[in-house]
Amino acid sequence: MSKPTNIPTHAPTNMEKPADIGADATEMLSNWGRATTDYFGRLLKSYPTAPPKILEAVEYSLLAGGKRLRPALILESWRACSGGDAKYPAPAALAAAAAMELVHTFSLVHDDLPAMDDDDLRRGRPTNHKVFGEATAILAGDAMVAMAFDVLARNCPPLLVGPLVGELAHATGPAGMIGGQVIDMDGEHPPRNLHELQSLHRMKTGALLTASCRMGAIAAEADAENISRLDRYGRHLGLAFQIVDDLLDETATPEQMGKATKKDAERGKVTYPTLLGLEASRREAERNLAAALEAIVPLGAEGEGLRALAKFVVERRV
Amino acid sequence: MSKPTNIPTHAPTNMEKPADIGADATEMLSNWGRATTDYFGRLLKSYPTAPPKILEAVEYSLLAGGKRLRPALILESWRACSGGDAKYPAPAALAAAAAMELVHTFSLVHDDLPAMDDDDLRRGRPTNHKVFGEATAILAGDAMVAMAFDVLARNCPPLLVGPLVGELAHATGPAGMIGGQVIDMDGEHPPRNLHELQSLHRMKTGALLTASCRMGAIAAEADAENISRLDRYGRHLGLAFQIVDDLLDETATPEQMGKATKKDAERGKVTYPTLLGLEASRREAERNLAAALEAIVPLGAEGEGLRALAKFVVERRV
Repeated sequence: MSKPTNIPTHAPTNMEKPADIGADATEMLSNWGRATTDYFGRLLKSYPTAPPKILEAVEYSLLAGGKRLRPALILESWRACSGGDAKYPAPAALAAAAAMELVHTFSLVHDDLPAMDDDDLRRGRPTNHKVFGEATAILAGDAMVAMAFDVLARNCPPLLVGPLVGELAHATGPAGMIGGQVIDMDGEHPPRNLHELQSLHRMKTGALLTASCRMGAIAAEADAENISRLDRYGRHLGLAFQIVDDLLDETATPEQMGKATKKDAERGKVTYPTLLGLEASRREAERNLAAALEAIVPLGAEGEGLRALAKFVVERRV
Repeated sequence: MSKPTNIPTHAPTNMEKPADIGADATEMLSNWGRATTDYFGRLLKSYPTAPPKILEAVEYSLLAGGKRLRPALILESWRACSGGDAKYPAPAALAAAAAMELVHTFSLVHDDLPAMDDDDLRRGRPTNHKVFGEATAILAGDAMVAMAFDVLARNCPPLLVGPLVGELAHATGPAGMIGGQVIDMDGEHPPRNLHELQSLHRMKTGALLTASCRMGAIAAEADAENISRLDRYGRHLGLAFQIVDDLLDETATPEQMGKATKKDAERGKVTYPTLLGLEASRREAERNLAAALEAIVPLGAEGEGLRALAKFVVERRV
């Protein structure tokens, strides 16, 4: 098997002034999203001996145009902890952003499978297995996880690989996202109260969102105090994100969301709106937003981007 | 999400004299296999917040009693490169052995799925999805990959994490095992000649077997020359392994193999026996065995265990 060529980690050429990205969340997401997408373009070229079919299936889902919220959280956490003077993202921060989005995308591809949520539409396009078939979709998801860890191992300074791989692997595994997915799929033991619902979401969506913030800080070689601030920010942002997701599933149209909506209600799933009602759910999202913002007050002006992202998460309509 | 407790990496208590393991391959596989199984027992306890169901499904396949060939290759490669004076395996070698077996087992669980090979029997027991259902089997496989990288990040010396993660991730990904699986599943473009068949097997089974040998050497902080010797040994052993696998699928009974046999022929798959015939296939396996042994001549007496393993691979009847 030929060894991979290293991914060039210099600044993407079409991202001219990343240091000038303001606190406008949409612009920030679009800029960091483009940096991540460019990175994927180079990454996919770094497996010249792979069968084209698997790279096509991976590319289809990677480049389907998600919000790229997790890469933005990593890159803004990195920036907040680097003092804001770095002009371009460090290789470790970009690698972490790509690795995290690979894991997130793998989870979507597997969640959509007939044996799981059986969804036909994702990000406004047919789901991966609808286009490539079930076997290839399973393998494409598997390939994305391997690529995520490959990216970290190949592109981070040696002493950062362990901490970054550890964060991502633990947040992905049985005590993180995958564990949450198992609870969510278990129709026999649905969460019965707010405590159990929060514990599900801390694993299913919260683990990767919190790990994003921690990994950005780790890529910036932040001290334990700042990592812990970003951890708290991430946990509250994660809960706010999930509450808003539940609200949007209830109130948005499939056209807005690029995927089927009102699925929770159809499946009789316990959600924030079913437990608390729409209004109290909205207040709970606002309360978590406030707590997230509170956690990063000590970061001062450097936390501007993270504040904008947190507000975006709660105010978004998609 | 609570952080994991570290896995104790001291020597397993029921493995009294690992340094005395002779060159008897069966005994070696059984001893290193027990060390790996004990390690899994501790690993499964290190996710106290994970839902029990996912750990059960992971445990079911992890402790189903495979040959543990890959862990043995890692631990014998480690021993050959450590000068043989180390009494117990280094934490990095044991972690690499567990991580590799996790990835191998994940690949079996996903390969057996209805959308893939649709197998009911594995290692003499019902396949994972037959017991836990398709959704949980998919997630159990996913969890095992995450756990593999978690194990490496948590239990290796900082400077070894990058090289070990890189080897495992690359050998698993689109240019390695998963890429090979994609080619193997592609009924429209089966390999047409020996060259294409070898290229398929170098990815599908060879990549992990070669990576096992390399990772053992890396865990022993071997020099580039010894890594390259073990790489060559691993590549030839990988081809010999696959040829013998094809021969056994043709000639062994399901009782011997603990899984369905003659499936290649049923599916009209191109194999070594269909391309070369039984006798020439056996000679090709012997030729690769000789080349594997040749590669490790410079290791002298330290290579005794690896020589026994290579012979076992070619002479095995299961």
